Amino acid sequence: MRIAFLNPFGTAAYDELVTDALTSAARADAEVVVQHLDLRPENIDYYAAKHLIEVGIMKAAIRAERDGFDAFVIGCCYDPALTQARELVNIPVVAPLEASVGISRAFGHSFAVVTDHHKAVPEIADRIRLYGMEANCKTVTSVGWFVNAMVRDTEGVAKDAYDASARVLAESGAETVIIGCTIVSACYEKVASSGNADYQKLSVINPNIVALKQAEVLADMNRQGQYRISRAAYYQPLDQHDPVAAAEVFDLLS
Amino acid sequence: MRIAFLNPFGTAAYDELVTDALTSAARADAEVVVQHLDLRPENIDYYAAKHLIEVGIMKAAIRAERDGFDAFVIGCCYDPALTQARELVNIPVVAPLEASVGISRAFGHSFAVVTDHHKAVPEIADRIRLYGMEANCKTVTSVGWFVNAMVRDTEGVAKDAYDASARVLAESGAETVIIGCTIVSACYEKVASSGNADYQKLSVINPNIVALKQAEVLADMNRQGQYRISRAAYYQPLDQHDPVAAAEVFDLLS
Amino acid sequence: MRIAFLNPFGTAAYDELVTDALTSAARADAEVVVQHLDLRPENIDYYAAKHLIEVGIMKAAIRAERDGFDAFVIGCCYDPALTQARELVNIPVVAPLEASVGISRAFGHSFAVVTDHHKAVPEIADRIRLYGMEANCKTVTSVGWFVNAMVRDTEGVAKDAYDASARVLAESGAETVIIGCTIVSACYEKVASSGNADYQKLSVINPNIVALKQAEVLADMNRQGQYRISRAAYYQPLDQHDPVAAAEVFDLLS
Amino acid sequence: MRIAFLNPFGTAAYDELVTDALTSAARADAEVVVQHLDLRPENIDYYAAKHLIEVGIMKAAIRAERDGFDAFVIGCCYDPALTQARELVNIPVVAPLEASVGISRAFGHSFAVVTDHHKAVPEIADRIRLYGMEANCKTVTSVGWFVNAMVRDTEGVAKDAYDASARVLAESGAETVIIGCTIVSACYEKVASSGNADYQKLSVINPNIVALKQAEVLADMNRQGQYRISRAAYYQPLDQHDPVAAAEVFDLLS
Amino acid sequence: MRIAFLNPFGTAAYDELVTDALTSAARADAEVVVQHLDLRPENIDYYAAKHLIEVGIMKAAIRAERDGFDAFVIGCCYDPALTQARELVNIPVVAPLEASVGISRAFGHSFAVVTDHHKAVPEIADRIRLYGMEANCKTVTSVGWFVNAMVRDTEGVAKDAYDASARVLAESGAETVIIGCTIVSACYEKVASSGNADYQKLSVINPNIVALKQAEVLADMNRQGQYRISRAAYYQPLDQHDPVAAAEVFDLLS
Amino acid sequence: MRIAFLNPFGTAAYDELVTDALTSAARADAEVVVQHLDLRPENIDYYAAKHLIEVGIMKAAIRAERDGFDAFVIGCCYDPALTQARELVNIPVVAPLEASVGISRAFGHSFAVVTDHHKAVPEIADRIRLYGMEANCKTVTSVGWFVNAMVRDTEGVAKDAYDASARVLAESGAETVIIGCTIVSACYEKVASSGNADYQKLSVINPNIVALKQAEVLADMNRQGQYRISRAAYYQPLDQHDPVAAAEVFDLLS
Repeated sequence: MRIAFLNPFGTAAYDELVTDALTSAARADAEVVVQHLDLRPENIDYYAAKHLIEVGIMKAAIRAERDGFDAFVIGCCYDPALTQARELVNIPVVAPLEASVGISRAFGHSFAVVTDHHKAVPEIADRIRLYGMEANCKTVTSVGWFVNAMVRDTEGVAKDAYDASARVLAESGAETVIIGCTIVSACYEKVASSGNADYQKLSVINPNIVALKQAEVLADMNRQGQYRISRAAYYQPLDQHDPVAAAEVFDLLS
Repeated sequence: MRIAFLNPFGTAAYDELVTDALTSAARADAEVVVQHLDLRPENIDYYAAKHLIEVGIMKAAIRAERDGFDAFVIGCCYDPALTQARELVNIPVVAPLEASVGISRAFGHSFAVVTDHHKAVPEIADRIRLYGMEANCKTVTSVGWFVNAMVRDTEGVAKDAYDASARVLAESGAETVIIGCTIVSACYEKVASSGNADYQKLSVINPNIVALKQAEVLADMNRQGQYRISRAAYYQPLDQHDPVAAAEVFDLLS
Repeated sequence: MRIAFLNPFGTAAYDELVTDALTSAARADAEVVVQHLDLRPENIDYYAAKHLIEVGIMKAAIRAERDGFDAFVIGCCYDPALTQARELVNIPVVAPLEASVGISRAFGHSFAVVTDHHKAVPEIADRIRLYGMEANCKTVTSVGWFVNAMVRDTEGVAKDAYDASARVLAESGAETVIIGCTIVSACYEKVASSGNADYQKLSVINPNIVALKQAEVLADMNRQGQYRISRAAYYQPLDQHDPVAAAEVFDLLS
Repeated sequence: MRIAFLNPFGTAAYDELVTDALTSAARADAEVVVQHLDLRPENIDYYAAKHLIEVGIMKAAIRAERDGFDAFVIGCCYDPALTQARELVNIPVVAPLEASVGISRAFGHSFAVVTDHHKAVPEIADRIRLYGMEANCKTVTSVGWFVNAMVRDTEGVAKDAYDASARVLAESGAETVIIGCTIVSACYEKVASSGNADYQKLSVINPNIVALKQAEVLADMNRQGQYRISRAAYYQPLDQHDPVAAAEVFDLLS
Repeated sequence: MRIAFLNPFGTAAYDELVTDALTSAARADAEVVVQHLDLRPENIDYYAAKHLIEVGIMKAAIRAERDGFDAFVIGCCYDPALTQARELVNIPVVAPLEASVGISRAFGHSFAVVTDHHKAVPEIADRIRLYGMEANCKTVTSVGWFVNAMVRDTEGVAKDAYDASARVLAESGAETVIIGCTIVSACYEKVASSGNADYQKLSVINPNIVALKQAEVLADMNRQGQYRISRAAYYQPLDQHDPVAAAEVFDLLS
Repeated sequence: MRIAFLNPFGTAAYDELVTDALTSAARADAEVVVQHLDLRPENIDYYAAKHLIEVGIMKAAIRAERDGFDAFVIGCCYDPALTQARELVNIPVVAPLEASVGISRAFGHSFAVVTDHHKAVPEIADRIRLYGMEANCKTVTSVGWFVNAMVRDTEGVAKDAYDASARVLAESGAETVIIGCTIVSACYEKVASSGNADYQKLSVINPNIVALKQAEVLADMNRQGQYRISRAAYYQPLDQHDPVAAAEVFDLLS
């Protein structure tokens, strides 16, 4: 089983950090290939920038399918281009926020999200509303770090994420915390895996691993004919309506 | 007052229809300029295609501001690129679905949406949920027309929209109907304005005109210092965080 | 275009303040006539008092229509007698809270309301729930002023409204604030228009102007046959069911 | 214990029917006095008419308290003037819709409402939303009878209510039905109590009796110091803020 | 009328406290018999323990019906085994949390719950959600007492409940408080009834008395053929589907 | 990796069917042991019966942990005793309905549930509400089969499930269907895996396999220190509060 895990940033700077975060989590029979984008802008944090990066994500999803990957993970908690990618390809597409909220009740009665910075808060909140899980989300808050600064101080990020998570658990009534940024989570886990018991014990959900494991599951189910994604409307591909137009769109994305 | 009204399609085919729909509705002191995109794909109906078209909408919003327009209307009920455009420019950006649900209670106790085709239904439903108005929306349904077929039979479209609206009013408990497609609405109004009393009487909300009028209002308020859009997060422009990155994004969108 | 803007208080004390608030906002072709009631009790703040004042509002709406006004604005954020007035007359009836929540998403991702005093809080919250917008309302809070005290210290009211709005933006997660009292807002704008940059920049929604502009819009649309208010049930007039009883009710309200 | 049960109609026409409906239900130690209003308009069905009748209800509540009643029941499922009356008097005020939805889960997992006519549907739906019980209400529907016609054919009303209730139970997923009109319910119970086993078995909630019993309960609790109604805001009386203004309002309602 | 009020604990330790709490509240014609369970574990506070105690509650409900009681009250705000008991017996079964939320709006615009300890919070919140009243519940909080400690310091419990209720009223926006634990409430009322005016005035809802009074009401209505509980599904007894299996279950519960 | 999959029925009758359903789905390194209960009553369909069976499930969970299983799956879409089991043991506990709703959005924009019979409908609906996913659930419906009849006609069950699923997809607006009964699903998959293309193509979610795969995932994560279940309250074990009482409860469940 081969899984493509895309860091949707126009730089290789986060690849090592994320590779480390995933290494021990994958099944023995699963190969995870961490990828990044090769485009401008480099960062995804604002809506216009995110939109341009999502064009790259669509292209990467198509390429992953053509390259024979069994699943494609979009490694960012905005879950950028998730619906578009599911529309475009037949291999399972997984996104970390969707996967994390879907498994959150196995971790606690209700959850909160701790994401990177203030700009992400309304976007994360909107996605949780669309995912239908707003009723169980106590709050969305942030630690005030932008991705390009994180690589320079992963321990500082981890500490702020730990503090914010502990605080939100104490104050919001949430029982578990989704770390709502793949890079913040990778920083957190780097410290946790180095032996910090406090970090290991706090009830936080790791979106990188949850996404990876859902990719393994859906790849398995797909192979078994059990991933029966609905092509009724939301994920209906354009070629069911207009093959010529669909070919043109694929062309534009190649 | 000059208002840019964009048909977000890669063709001039709908410009006349929409111009006719808006002509008599604008204030005496408002000039409405109907525009279209000049890109591929031509149609906006599927998510990947919509995403590519939204790149064009972002560019058009930036251009409209540079060209001195007082407001920019995105003439499609997907409200495509609405948040992105508000992030990018300082002139008011208006979208027809958002404007229509916002005024719907002046038309009736609850509303339904009649949009073009099945693919649009989940997208419209998602947007209404994000706009916070799901509680008053009885249902979202469609007439089964794609935009590129509509121009060839505007009367057929109008008739189907009338029938679907009348039916949804009778069956869903909704008291008013938002015609959730600017082109379907333009077809409907063409028949209504030609003297059809049944069409004139039905409680349907015209998204083209509601959007245009909101653009007039926000342009007025903007001039008076009363359109105090929050730049706290959702509509915060990138240059407040990183002017260099913002310049690059504008460059990519020019 | 002639618009009646009613201060629903049994005194002329607020007419000047509100007239000032509206003067520069109206379109060139719109004449705004500020009115007040001539009845007891003078104030609207408690439910029984409000109920008696609403009888006056119904009469004023009927009179406005008879006097040839093109729209009738109920100048109080309780939106008192709104449904009753829409049932009674054919000219558009506009209320500031309904209009403000309807346009709030153009100002920010979510909103809060800052109203006058504690008694108004549950009423405002109830109306927002009925308007279907509870999902996007973070909180309703108040500044602790009653209307009859406000005219004696408009600057004090403005300062408290500014402080409360700034605080609620910082603490609640809301991105914009609806000033949920027409008189509080008029006090605020008096200071803002006198040149206070802080007041000018804060993302607050002015309910007086938003209501006035919606009245302009609906009056325009009504003239164009585009204000197709549903008379199915909620706004159905009594004479559609029983003309004799309807005549009696009009008699009682004349 | 003495309970005033007000038919909020300007006629004695329904007093006998309602008296019959309540007679056997009251506790041995409770005297129920059925009252009606003495004002115009006679009927409550439209919003303006209802508003005028509510002035009479406020007066009747004040009078009931002065006359030493232990509780006051507003005998109409619009729950008209409920908040106003609670604000005005210290004896418990009960309304049939609020009482019925509050006890509905003892009757079934979810409920529907069958009210009198189409005009009542949005008003009932709004009240259920404000009461916080929308989540468990499957639908609100009506039988198409106006009150003044009901007295002339109580059996016809009963039959239509039975049929509508049976149908809504079969089709909506609701497990129990609130008969959302006190007069429709009285007609229904007249047939049921005459021995019709079908009517006796259907899971319908009788709002007259549920209201009466809640009045008994709250009167008991009030006597025991256990009806600790909050006077914080929603039910805060005006004299806590302004005794002079409160005296004037009471004067206007005497 | 005879009402069984079960303390669902495996000890007689709370019987006197609860008996005192109910004594003066019952109707003259109602006899209240306070019962407890005779099983292990003694306490109900954790889910597994609660589950075992609920087996005892089911048995007690069957026994109460066999012993000719007119209603059965489950004296714990977890409302344990409520649905099971309603499925098993024909006499009305009442539970204090369900009864309290159902009458809460007669006490104030919105409510909060103050329960015993942190473990109860998610369970109470879940039940309020299922009861359909989440929209009007501002928060669920606790005083940090476990039942077996309460009997040793009823005044300390009362004081903490008073403080927590006052605080939640001041901070949450709720207007009234449901004391969400029958023993906490009994402690509170013991102090209130001894003459403490502060305790008497605070707007708190007494779940013991509200449950008892609802039992009186439903027993009355049951006798009058007016407690038409739906046996469609949620409360459908097993013998309607399979009498042999039903007999076996009753056997297991005897 | 060893996973216990419990058929929570007091009979071995379904073990073969479920074993067949799971066989090809498990990972190569995972051993699935299908178990059943050895108690009365045999069936779980009514609340009292379910409650007694849940005692057996709690015991089975404790036993599975003692027997060294890596995860415990409760093989019934009521998700019976789920919270209790998570409170009692440290190995991951998985339930099919919770797992299925959590992954449903990867299958379609919204879902419906097709469960076995009418009695299950309110229970399933309640659980979905508690899981926080009511917003995305269009309807819960049933096929009218009880489990003990299913083993005698697995093809008939499969056909009815297919028909009901196809109908609910066509009529409710849901895009995918959770087969809300493990045995109904096993019947369905038996036909699908025998080569029926219609059954293979319909967008239905298989709760047996989704639960099994979530068990694999959580077992993996648990081994890696990544299943950080919150022990704050909802899943807090009794021994954190009272070890003596906890020992007694374990004793009662051994």
